[in-house]
Amino acid sequence: MSVLQEISSNVRNMKQLEYAILARRVNQIKEGLKQGVRKPYKEIIDVSWGDPHRAGVKPLSFVRQVVTACIYPQLINSNKLPADVRQRAQRLLGECAGGSVGSSTATAGIPELVHRVSDFIMRRDGGAPSHPENIYMSSGAQWALTNILNVLVNREASTRTGVLTPGPCYSITNLSIMELGAVIVPYYLNEEQGWELQVEELHRALESAKGVCNPVALYVINPGNPSGHVQSRKSMQEVIRFVSEKRLFLLADEVYQDCVYGEKSEFVSYKRALMEMGPPLSDTVELASFHSASKGLMGECGLRGGYVELVNLDRAVMKYIHNLFSKDSCAPVLGQLALDLMLNPPQPGDPSYPLYNAEIQHIRSTLARNVKRACEVVNSLLGFYCQPVEGGAFAFPRVYLPPKAIQKAKEVGMKPDTFYCMRLLEETGLLVSPGSEYRQKEGTYHIRFCIITSEDIMEELLKRLSSFHTQFMKDFS
Amino acid sequence: MSVLQEISSNVRNMKQLEYAILARRVNQIKEGLKQGVRKPYKEIIDVSWGDPHRAGVKPLSFVRQVVTACIYPQLINSNKLPADVRQRAQRLLGECAGGSVGSSTATAGIPELVHRVSDFIMRRDGGAPSHPENIYMSSGAQWALTNILNVLVNREASTRTGVLTPGPCYSITNLSIMELGAVIVPYYLNEEQGWELQVEELHRALESAKGVCNPVALYVINPGNPSGHVQSRKSMQEVIRFVSEKRLFLLADEVYQDCVYGEKSEFVSYKRALMEMGPPLSDTVELASFHSASKGLMGECGLRGGYVELVNLDRAVMKYIHNLFSKDSCAPVLGQLALDLMLNPPQPGDPSYPLYNAEIQHIRSTLARNVKRACEVVNSLLGFYCQPVEGGAFAFPRVYLPPKAIQKAKEVGMKPDTFYCMRLLEETGLLVSPGSEYRQKEGTYHIRFCIITSEDIMEELLKRLSSFHTQFMKDFS
Repeated sequence: MSVLQEISSNVRNMKQLEYAILARRVNQIKEGLKQGVRKPYKEIIDVSWGDPHRAGVKPLSFVRQVVTACIYPQLINSNKLPADVRQRAQRLLGECAGGSVGSSTATAGIPELVHRVSDFIMRRDGGAPSHPENIYMSSGAQWALTNILNVLVNREASTRTGVLTPGPCYSITNLSIMELGAVIVPYYLNEEQGWELQVEELHRALESAKGVCNPVALYVINPGNPSGHVQSRKSMQEVIRFVSEKRLFLLADEVYQDCVYGEKSEFVSYKRALMEMGPPLSDTVELASFHSASKGLMGECGLRGGYVELVNLDRAVMKYIHNLFSKDSCAPVLGQLALDLMLNPPQPGDPSYPLYNAEIQHIRSTLARNVKRACEVVNSLLGFYCQPVEGGAFAFPRVYLPPKAIQKAKEVGMKPDTFYCMRLLEETGLLVSPGSEYRQKEGTYHIRFCIITSEDIMEELLKRLSSFHTQFMKDFS
Repeated sequence: MSVLQEISSNVRNMKQLEYAILARRVNQIKEGLKQGVRKPYKEIIDVSWGDPHRAGVKPLSFVRQVVTACIYPQLINSNKLPADVRQRAQRLLGECAGGSVGSSTATAGIPELVHRVSDFIMRRDGGAPSHPENIYMSSGAQWALTNILNVLVNREASTRTGVLTPGPCYSITNLSIMELGAVIVPYYLNEEQGWELQVEELHRALESAKGVCNPVALYVINPGNPSGHVQSRKSMQEVIRFVSEKRLFLLADEVYQDCVYGEKSEFVSYKRALMEMGPPLSDTVELASFHSASKGLMGECGLRGGYVELVNLDRAVMKYIHNLFSKDSCAPVLGQLALDLMLNPPQPGDPSYPLYNAEIQHIRSTLARNVKRACEVVNSLLGFYCQPVEGGAFAFPRVYLPPKAIQKAKEVGMKPDTFYCMRLLEETGLLVSPGSEYRQKEGTYHIRFCIITSEDIMEELLKRLSSFHTQFMKDFS
């Protein structure tokens, strides 16, 4: 009586993440290490996720203190916590139903917090108006993206819906598109030009969809994951003109907006770029912009907080979106709180400011150093090349695998870069993820690793990677 | 360039929750009260949700203390927290990647926690085996249900997939089924028999689906929401035989398993009932059982933690389910922790036990009293009748509305029970939800209100309801 025959092709077609092969193995190794199995390393270093705390980054004290006082309100009256922490907690609890973070919230999130998200957006975007009724808080940005995709993907049309997505692209987005039964139309970022998004490539991709599917949306990630590229305002304006001309909905994944390292790089939101272009574009281009408490310097992935802002959407469409969010109950309250604290950090003069500022500066300088070291070391290795990492959470160097290694990978039934990552894991205990997870260009191979780590972890990572890589290249030369 | 024309009928057909009309109005009233608008009440009492903290129930100290220490590990070394709290926090943090609740977790949840969920299930079910690989933690039970429905609903078959759901039924489940484009096949619980689930009615419902859809699953909620009924083992055995005979997948929503009040009522899980029936049933009936940290006596809705256990599923189906959970990143870590603490509370002899036990007993005795008082008061009112509340979080009394009230509702374009609830809200500031939200039997009207409240809130609720109802019946007699 299995339901197996009922499963429709959208679910069948969701590919297992390439990473899952490595995840299974890493669990076995961890289990082995616990049982005393001898390995040339004592601990796994897992930098395969964009997960700062996993990689040794410390949480921000201010955020943890406020959340703590909200969970355990007795602490609001203790003098162990700074006055602004206690005031903030008091205010947030006053905004929770029944004064408890254990209560559900309205579908879009706690109303006062949603208002403050819209204030943040206006500040960020030089005053361009933002309306609370266009904002939905969610359990991470990806959850919100799935709901928006749900209104874009027509499951009944004779021609399947297409979504233009970058190559390389964050793998979970591709999974979400597949789950809805839509077609991924890849446009490739230009690796040689530092993973630039080039509008000619968008035209090519759109052309390639003819006769295959009906493209309705363009998905961009800026700063890039895994590419590390930060788009220029000019490039964004070209993209906006393109989506306007081709009548595409623009999905802007901007979760790494606080993570910009390039000296000449600057994060500009798509909302801002669009508003600066004025009418008719600013009145017509349909845009969804996503942000998250998981990313950036705070890195509270485990609390699950994100939001989407919708721009220029028809009221009827907003109603459908509301219904879709309704079915998810509400976003985790502590994720909502963490997002609020991220967008409204302590200000100079506040008791918490000196510590907050010192911690943020420490993370920033660590990241600047990590990015520099990662590129230096990787680029010093034969058969490796990393484009400048201007932003985001990852380095995504290209690895030029020797033909013998590619042959060996085929023999063991793995993709060549998965084979490389598996060997790296087995021999050094270092877990990175393979480029084949991210729809890299056919015939190229990459690895992705998180650069939002502590200095120690970064040095250990580079040490393990270097010695492994040198030996690997010898073994397969 | 609106995407409006792209929206497929599954999304278009998702009805706005009936409750949304009331939710909008309640926000206006709250805003008005803030601005000094005079009303015959000072505060809204919102018992329309199954949200204990919103309704004045206090969080459990043990749960909040452990979560606090996990968020702010400095507290683990403070002697302000009981020793077992600190030990528990230490252990949980050791199970989080990087020792931080800010890290993401594996798709199914933190492995050690998933193991403990399976231990809990075995203890609960008298030793019937439970395997960690069949368990997925999720951001509330509803999220897990959507993923399971996703593998059951075939979007490509010429005949649409049907799911048998109770009338009355938790409204969000109906929304999730609609979102996937499946057909709701209602089976009605027998109100006169205390909302009993009768197997003849299942046969009738299945018969009614002929030529309309292809039913693949039966969804049950036990203890009932909103019905308050607790199923007997005998009734469950009949259901199991029915799904086996009709080759239906059994979806058992058991989130209120800790909330049983009836003197003769006992919660038995479907897993246990199934295992006790032995082969071939226990080897073949496909079952998904859901539980949640939002419900029960702890009531931490805002933390968002739940799980599903899958029984007798094909390995291939489990792979698809894994992929579906993968796309959601992971369940909120603090929700996972709360679930773990709910399933593994302090034991006699632990330093936290006396306080924990006192708090739990206080909630239990409050609930017993609330249930008694709610039924007494409601049943003393003319035109109201409430079946015994044996379990769950709600009273769901039937209200016999006078024809003039029904007429008036029609005139203002509202469903009669929504009209009743709106008047109740306007005049007394008491927010309950209308039976039309839950697919009640045609021609009957009900209201639903939460009974997991503080004693004060329950008394105030009953006072407001009584005086309003008496006047309402006079006005429309």
